[in-house]
Amino acid sequence: MEKWKFQGNQGLKSSAVSVRGVFNVLMQSISKEKEVVRLCRVDPTDNPLFSADPVAAHAVSTAAHSGNFNCYPPTFGLPQARRAIAEYLSRDLPNKLSAEDIYVTDGATQAIDIILPVFATPGANILLPRPGYPQYETRAALCGLEVRHFDLLPNSSWEVDIDSLEALADDKTVAMVLISPSNPCGNVFTYQHLKRVAETARKLGIFVISDEVYAHIAFGSNPFVPMGVFSSIAPVITLGSISKRWILPGWRFGWIATCDPHGIFQKTGIAANIESYMEITSDPPTFMQAAIPEILERINDEFYSKNLDITREAANALYERFKEIPSLICPHKPDGAMAVMVQINLSQIEGIADDVDFCVKLAKEESLLILPGVIVGLKNWLRVSFGLERSAIEEGLSRLKAFCLRHAKMSQQISA
Amino acid sequence: MEKWKFQGNQGLKSSAVSVRGVFNVLMQSISKEKEVVRLCRVDPTDNPLFSADPVAAHAVSTAAHSGNFNCYPPTFGLPQARRAIAEYLSRDLPNKLSAEDIYVTDGATQAIDIILPVFATPGANILLPRPGYPQYETRAALCGLEVRHFDLLPNSSWEVDIDSLEALADDKTVAMVLISPSNPCGNVFTYQHLKRVAETARKLGIFVISDEVYAHIAFGSNPFVPMGVFSSIAPVITLGSISKRWILPGWRFGWIATCDPHGIFQKTGIAANIESYMEITSDPPTFMQAAIPEILERINDEFYSKNLDITREAANALYERFKEIPSLICPHKPDGAMAVMVQINLSQIEGIADDVDFCVKLAKEESLLILPGVIVGLKNWLRVSFGLERSAIEEGLSRLKAFCLRHAKMSQQISA
Repeated sequence: MEKWKFQGNQGLKSSAVSVRGVFNVLMQSISKEKEVVRLCRVDPTDNPLFSADPVAAHAVSTAAHSGNFNCYPPTFGLPQARRAIAEYLSRDLPNKLSAEDIYVTDGATQAIDIILPVFATPGANILLPRPGYPQYETRAALCGLEVRHFDLLPNSSWEVDIDSLEALADDKTVAMVLISPSNPCGNVFTYQHLKRVAETARKLGIFVISDEVYAHIAFGSNPFVPMGVFSSIAPVITLGSISKRWILPGWRFGWIATCDPHGIFQKTGIAANIESYMEITSDPPTFMQAAIPEILERINDEFYSKNLDITREAANALYERFKEIPSLICPHKPDGAMAVMVQINLSQIEGIADDVDFCVKLAKEESLLILPGVIVGLKNWLRVSFGLERSAIEEGLSRLKAFCLRHAKMSQQISA
Repeated sequence: MEKWKFQGNQGLKSSAVSVRGVFNVLMQSISKEKEVVRLCRVDPTDNPLFSADPVAAHAVSTAAHSGNFNCYPPTFGLPQARRAIAEYLSRDLPNKLSAEDIYVTDGATQAIDIILPVFATPGANILLPRPGYPQYETRAALCGLEVRHFDLLPNSSWEVDIDSLEALADDKTVAMVLISPSNPCGNVFTYQHLKRVAETARKLGIFVISDEVYAHIAFGSNPFVPMGVFSSIAPVITLGSISKRWILPGWRFGWIATCDPHGIFQKTGIAANIESYMEITSDPPTFMQAAIPEILERINDEFYSKNLDITREAANALYERFKEIPSLICPHKPDGAMAVMVQINLSQIEGIADDVDFCVKLAKEESLLILPGVIVGLKNWLRVSFGLERSAIEEGLSRLKAFCLRHAKMSQQISA
């Protein structure tokens, strides 16, 4: 069949590494002997203790049955949904948002897909955190936006390495991304640190994209502070979704919020650019948009605090069990989001080449799925999710410990 | 505020012309004196005679209330949704599709956004119909895929100009797009013509992308024939959605179907490429995917045939009224889809520069919205939607007639 002219496109394969893609590869490595334990993805519905508030299904069902929301939605979102999101976010902001600051999206994934091309002027570069979330790298590559990585510091509570950030920026740097609370590090940035990030952005003349998909998932001593609090220092684009706090990842509903009291996004054409991209992209279903006000307004604090308790318990269980595994190092006790980074001490392990080899053998030998750190930018680390129930975490960590002991160097095995 | 380095991005504005964007511009031209009549977009919910089948809301409501579909969906779609779509499409195909041939998308818009980059190898080009649907041009430009236009022939029932198609293709041509039934021309291609298109594609060594968003919206003498019928001649990628036939455009649910009995998409890497892009794009909500089997299986023929009758009546009313307006020429009585192309005879009109000027003045003077043909590739034509109730069409055409008479050259006015 050589007559067909198209003979394959290797373009995407080399640039696009997705969590989902690697997850699919690991799935294929699994032996079928044990039931699979997934510590590799952050889908809170994997934890049977979490369940969505019935308000959500009721709201969407009412909207669907009304028949009033079968039409195409307005380009930037249904006005009542935009207004509800603006009011919801404004509860925590000194500079209140209006409905016009909100653009609704198909989850935060589409928010990333829209926002990166907006900044992709010829020669421009963007600063991304390492470790981070690979959707940013993939989409930046697809739109020709150069990526530079600044470090998050494992021994300083995963704070931004401000010096490394400043050293990276040049006159073609247009923006930086922060994921706050941090995916994949599981830390909650302090007010003071976020303020310092905003001041650095201002000094460098770059905008801040704050990925707050895990907003309010903060269960330690640091409260969640939205980056928009500092929007009078540097303009902030906040990305959010109902996936994590509301345990509705499959609803694929998110938003872009422009936190910008001085109207700088208007003046620089960023707002117009976002709007151009919104005009050519798909939207969340209209009836789902219609359900958003009820979801944001009627779910009460008890729902959120119960889920925080569950998450805290899972994170603590995970952290305690890591201490029992000498070849793994967890530098920071997680206090936010739903995943944590753990370093592999390869000097204590034999027969394992690197983190990918570790995870493939782990899947094969233990039916345990963990994401290799290289996917999120840190080679020879692991990204471990704790969006599961405690028993799954206990089972997973037992298998992880058995695996590490089995592969420990002889000297280690004797001491173990 | 010059300190912010990002000073605007003109990239998208020059390349992206969307129906939605122009619609927004026309909306701003409207005078507030009369109620607006919209013959400019194809949202069937604009016609109060159409209403969705209650099965749809019931199915989605049941899925949402079950709580079983709040998780992230599988990358290519929920298996039961893929299976139901494969079975639904297979009813009209000699070579049956399997669930693995189906990829679910956020409406056909996202299907286009996924499929064009798949073909965008360096130097490749794709053949698009003129007139067509501008999302193709926009997305091709964004991914660097060269576009070449073949003509649809207004005086031959808008059939493909096969000679022009053959003349355009070269050794870098990878695929062609056909929109069938035709948006914006409102015709239904015959079995024989589609077969000839497939044979031409085979001869040229190019794949066929068949945009069948208006599948089964055929109310004249030509029955709808899916391009997949000819997939053993040339492999076909079919794009579909529930927007039009089910009157659910706001549900944003669509699909990509690979109709390929000889497995050529596997061999050439097309299937792997589609899957790479699916891994990094957002999805329709899981609970909505769960509702699809019920929607495709339980809605009965009465619903479809009633809607066809309504569409036929609207199309006929529109066509008859055009005959009364001497400065407009409708070369083909519409028998499919929900829009038709009408040529402006500028020699009979004065004070109007072109189709855009026509539409802006029409919006201002008559509060009537019609899309200028240049948006879909034909300058000095109009794209007129008939997805509305008859009374709105009558009112719209009265205003259009009044407008044309008011702007007719003196010699015409005397004869009118």
